[in-house]
Amino acid sequence: MIMVTLDKMYHAAFILKEVARRTDLIYAPNLSKDAEIYLKTENLQVTGSFKLRGAYYKISQLTEEQKKAGIIACSAGNHAQGVALASTRQGVRSVVYMPDSAPISKVEATKRLGAEVVLTKGAYDDAYAAAVKAQQETGATLIHPFDDDEVIAGQGTIGLEILDQMPDVDAVIVPIGGGGLISGVAFAIKQLRPSVKVYGVQANNAPSMFESHRQGHQITLDSVHTFADGIAVKHPGDTTFAMVEKFVDDIVTVSEDEIATAILTMIEKQKLIAEGAGAVSVAAAMFNKLPLAGKKVVCLVSGGNIDVNILSRVITRGLVTSGRNANLLIALEDKPGQLVGVSEIISRCGANVVSVRHERSDPNMAISSCFLRVGMETRDFAQIAEIREELTKAGFVIVQ
Amino acid sequence: MIMVTLDKMYHAAFILKEVARRTDLIYAPNLSKDAEIYLKTENLQVTGSFKLRGAYYKISQLTEEQKKAGIIACSAGNHAQGVALASTRQGVRSVVYMPDSAPISKVEATKRLGAEVVLTKGAYDDAYAAAVKAQQETGATLIHPFDDDEVIAGQGTIGLEILDQMPDVDAVIVPIGGGGLISGVAFAIKQLRPSVKVYGVQANNAPSMFESHRQGHQITLDSVHTFADGIAVKHPGDTTFAMVEKFVDDIVTVSEDEIATAILTMIEKQKLIAEGAGAVSVAAAMFNKLPLAGKKVVCLVSGGNIDVNILSRVITRGLVTSGRNANLLIALEDKPGQLVGVSEIISRCGANVVSVRHERSDPNMAISSCFLRVGMETRDFAQIAEIREELTKAGFVIVQ
Repeated sequence: MIMVTLDKMYHAAFILKEVARRTDLIYAPNLSKDAEIYLKTENLQVTGSFKLRGAYYKISQLTEEQKKAGIIACSAGNHAQGVALASTRQGVRSVVYMPDSAPISKVEATKRLGAEVVLTKGAYDDAYAAAVKAQQETGATLIHPFDDDEVIAGQGTIGLEILDQMPDVDAVIVPIGGGGLISGVAFAIKQLRPSVKVYGVQANNAPSMFESHRQGHQITLDSVHTFADGIAVKHPGDTTFAMVEKFVDDIVTVSEDEIATAILTMIEKQKLIAEGAGAVSVAAAMFNKLPLAGKKVVCLVSGGNIDVNILSRVITRGLVTSGRNANLLIALEDKPGQLVGVSEIISRCGANVVSVRHERSDPNMAISSCFLRVGMETRDFAQIAEIREELTKAGFVIVQ
Repeated sequence: MIMVTLDKMYHAAFILKEVARRTDLIYAPNLSKDAEIYLKTENLQVTGSFKLRGAYYKISQLTEEQKKAGIIACSAGNHAQGVALASTRQGVRSVVYMPDSAPISKVEATKRLGAEVVLTKGAYDDAYAAAVKAQQETGATLIHPFDDDEVIAGQGTIGLEILDQMPDVDAVIVPIGGGGLISGVAFAIKQLRPSVKVYGVQANNAPSMFESHRQGHQITLDSVHTFADGIAVKHPGDTTFAMVEKFVDDIVTVSEDEIATAILTMIEKQKLIAEGAGAVSVAAAMFNKLPLAGKKVVCLVSGGNIDVNILSRVITRGLVTSGRNANLLIALEDKPGQLVGVSEIISRCGANVVSVRHERSDPNMAISSCFLRVGMETRDFAQIAEIREELTKAGFVIVQ
């Protein structure tokens, strides 16, 4: 039952001029050797994700009476902020239900945008149950995060913008959570330029649409554990599943490490922060999951709302896996001057020591020896190898 | 001797259409309570900084003979990449001299953009001497990073774009290193709309233009130590000093911590990576260094080329200073079950333990006790206080 129309999408684009940014399409020459990659930067959208589009258009289409009864939503993430700002800008009261485990930064951001936030004990499903109950009691409108025609039409305006910004695009890669974003984008593109490929990407650890597509019917995952929390959805929507089956060319998945590498690469090469969900499209292109050689490809970067603690871990891991941060565990004889010797060699090789730990308490060690754990900022793997070699030459035993 | 003209600047804008992006002006509602802040995102410029503009225009104005003799530049940073790409795109050979301490990422990026890189022993001044020598021997053109009319005209195109993107802007804040960027931007703005204020910002630790302005003549700093390495300049240019004196309304400085906070805030609120030099304009607005209340203000974010190791440190420090990461040192009695007790309390308060260190070797400790150092991801200072209180109530002694 696909009720979305191109008419509705153009109407959404018209309405959204009031509030949404027409986000830039930015050339990203260093993300792929084979394809010409461009980023559609919805991470730079107002509220930090595309979600504002669907929520704003949905609310704009409610009757005056419905608007008076207010809005309810349930979300631990971007949908919450999208609904909050969309409601506030249209003078409608909104209540957002969030699990009490939601990061304080997201709770605060949602409040700042004008919503009342109700924190419920438990997980997302519990918050959703509370939202449904409140909706039934108050008669407010519950805005579904993806399985809704107006919401899909709102997200689809991104597809219109992409075709306008790059008429000769060959393929568009879109993250999939519940499927609202890709449904809208794929519909717009296939209506207007059916030769353009539309590919969907999910996280390996939350492949609900991927599996549903493979099996030919909607499946429900027991659990979803990915740091791309914005697309951790257990069950695709009815409308979105139907639209994906009809309009999307293929779906692939990417691993947690691939997502992390995509985030770090975007930071270094494009100066952009993407959240995990926003980076899966880039990860799919970087790690050759799709036939893109020689093509002009738009990766939709759907959002940038990543918790800074997680970002910090992504960067740290990326530094280690790319040889720019290293740890050595060195066995020392327990006599004076050893630390001097080690530091001198590391410094001569041009690396920067950032942490030192000297351990004498391991019962597995011979009584006369100890361990030194050194953390360093390095240039690359070659420099690390050089340091290891110099230390070994000088008689130090590198345990790890 | 100010030879820059508005004519030249419009010509530069025309020429730059071939290569430079007209970077977005993005509303940043969460950076200031008093002023309406917009970011001119030159960190999203091709090569990650504005430097491409001046270099490209300069090279475009050389004679065919000069182009054949090639280009020489000296830089450890953004100027290198700007010159490299500008030369390559115009079919001119370029050699860039860099100190051998330059981060490998910048060396590689410069090579990737088509320049030959010569690494010289020592600091920037040594590399510069080598570049001058090579210029004299080869007859190539040495592109100065800031004290050059065409370079200034190229950077000034950013001023034209700002006035076009926001005709009712009240003030523009611009980072100052050697002064090329602000000379161009201030010239454009004061010629076209003299009522718009133009402010400059330097790092506390590298205030060469600030001090020169204060003393009324060009001074030379002995040393400059700021992580905003893109604006660590010891001596302002002749032309740029004259232009700043004539066209800039005021210059202020910001501290290293203020710059770091500005970088972290841009990551969280705007999903943008700025380098230290690029963030000083935002730092000046955030920390109320200028009379901006009620004004429409454009902060020029000049670049985003920050070393990821430094970025990682900026984020870590920011997490600690904002209560989202905390370390506790707890004195324990040396008996079984103590670690369980501590972890249980932290977990009950909702924080996430990320590191644990158990120390028994400090000679200052009573023989029957030991220390536990716990690193946690926390929500805010209130949560940290709650954890401390609960631990204390349970009889644990928090040393730090």
